[in-house]
Amino acid sequence: MIDFITFCDYTGTFAFAISGIRLASAKQFDWFGAYVVGVVTAVGGGTLRDILLNATPFWMTQSSYLIVSALALLFVLVFRRYVIHLNNTFFIFDAIGLGLFVVVGIDKTLEFGFPMWVAIVMGTITGSFGGMLRDILINEEPLIFRKDIYALACVFGGLIYYICMQTALSLAMTQAISATSVFMARVIAVRYHISVPVLKGEE
Amino acid sequence: MIDFITFCDYTGTFAFAISGIRLASAKQFDWFGAYVVGVVTAVGGGTLRDILLNATPFWMTQSSYLIVSALALLFVLVFRRYVIHLNNTFFIFDAIGLGLFVVVGIDKTLEFGFPMWVAIVMGTITGSFGGMLRDILINEEPLIFRKDIYALACVFGGLIYYICMQTALSLAMTQAISATSVFMARVIAVRYHISVPVLKGEE
Amino acid sequence: MIDFITFCDYTGTFAFAISGIRLASAKQFDWFGAYVVGVVTAVGGGTLRDILLNATPFWMTQSSYLIVSALALLFVLVFRRYVIHLNNTFFIFDAIGLGLFVVVGIDKTLEFGFPMWVAIVMGTITGSFGGMLRDILINEEPLIFRKDIYALACVFGGLIYYICMQTALSLAMTQAISATSVFMARVIAVRYHISVPVLKGEE
Repeated sequence: MIDFITFCDYTGTFAFAISGIRLASAKQFDWFGAYVVGVVTAVGGGTLRDILLNATPFWMTQSSYLIVSALALLFVLVFRRYVIHLNNTFFIFDAIGLGLFVVVGIDKTLEFGFPMWVAIVMGTITGSFGGMLRDILINEEPLIFRKDIYALACVFGGLIYYICMQTALSLAMTQAISATSVFMARVIAVRYHISVPVLKGEE
Repeated sequence: MIDFITFCDYTGTFAFAISGIRLASAKQFDWFGAYVVGVVTAVGGGTLRDILLNATPFWMTQSSYLIVSALALLFVLVFRRYVIHLNNTFFIFDAIGLGLFVVVGIDKTLEFGFPMWVAIVMGTITGSFGGMLRDILINEEPLIFRKDIYALACVFGGLIYYICMQTALSLAMTQAISATSVFMARVIAVRYHISVPVLKGEE
Repeated sequence: MIDFITFCDYTGTFAFAISGIRLASAKQFDWFGAYVVGVVTAVGGGTLRDILLNATPFWMTQSSYLIVSALALLFVLVFRRYVIHLNNTFFIFDAIGLGLFVVVGIDKTLEFGFPMWVAIVMGTITGSFGGMLRDILINEEPLIFRKDIYALACVFGGLIYYICMQTALSLAMTQAISATSVFMARVIAVRYHISVPVLKGEE
């Protein structure tokens, strides 16, 4: 089970870093800048969560996150021409990572003794804040506020987690169902173009 | 007295959230995105203050701030067409909230044992940083640096707080005078179009 | 030795603040806004480092950083017309500050018991994050990702620090060599227009 979780964690980190590196490269960032954007996309959410929880940021105790991000840069450099054909694959990886990130965020927050609603907020932050930072760094309006369901899929997964907790399900089962819910919500939202209605401003 | 402070706190949170939601809606954010911008505007300043003070962010121990922000979203959704006519009311609410936020920031910083100048900086951060984050999220240059007196009203209120502390005034009186100073500075600055001179760059 | 380090620290703070104030003035920020951008540029990197290390932000225990930033504002106001002719001088000051900031970031991180790779990341954050925040505040894409070698000079200085640590060199010598390496890397990169290759995106 640990191996599977680690696999999801690295997959998610890789996919998140790829998304940052690709958007940075579209903006003519240099290699190092693209790497930084990739790292920030991958670890930004968990870092804000850890700062708010007053915990040591997770990537400071394990170098694998920076290494996986470096591999993502290498991947984009080497397979530059083919990367675009892998869009669907990246999307799946990204959704897997998102599901896991949300569950990790929830677990860690509950371990720190906070109530469930804080845990859901933290799960959402863990999953979405990296992408928000990415968009700020490349000077775009955060996409997650305007396209498909992203942050809301995290909230949904958090609610599923909460519901499962009320049952006799084991923790591992709760985590698996919650992560899968996030994953499915993302896939269904994108497949069927489901999005949150735009808030029309006053004239 | 506590009731009055709580009232001001919620009023300020509501007004700050409204300002975030309205600006996000002008940028075609979806409902959830607008809610996030509203929350960030309302709690962003106090959150940075608490991170810098190494305290648990205030909204993580009390769900009312997220709830008041949700009410602000509901309000904008329902009264969309009339909201623009309430500009003056929102401005007053916002100024009340600002005054209170500054005083809360100062008090908390002094409780943590920091000197007055740090408290004034923290009061200013509590009052202004949320609006700065809001403008970054919607990808605009922070307005508070270019229009009317905003952050400077917070600094002014902090100086008034310091002066009152040198006198025999009670703490409650000091807080009330300081918050009122911020409020008045905002109202007067906007009413008479007083602003800090623009810093002309070299040619 | 302490005097020399303090001198470099103030020089760097002054130069970083000047760069923030000048860019803010080019965007028509008001005086106070320009001051805030100057302060953020000067202390932003060290502040993120301290938040990540769970330390009290350095500028909250010593008012000199805010005062030096205020002097930088005064300098720009008074010598507005001549500032542009001092570009080379500012560049040297900035590079001196960068070298020192990197070393300070590394030292502090090692003192907190983190391994060398975290210290190099923190040195780089200390040196570069302020400029990144500056560019976000004035709503520009972060320059450090696209021009010359900046963040990478910090990484380079960190590697030199690590190499020196493996030798019999004293700590002071290690620090001096590392800071000088950052300084030289910056000067050489700008002098000979050396930059990191742009990451060409897929078509």
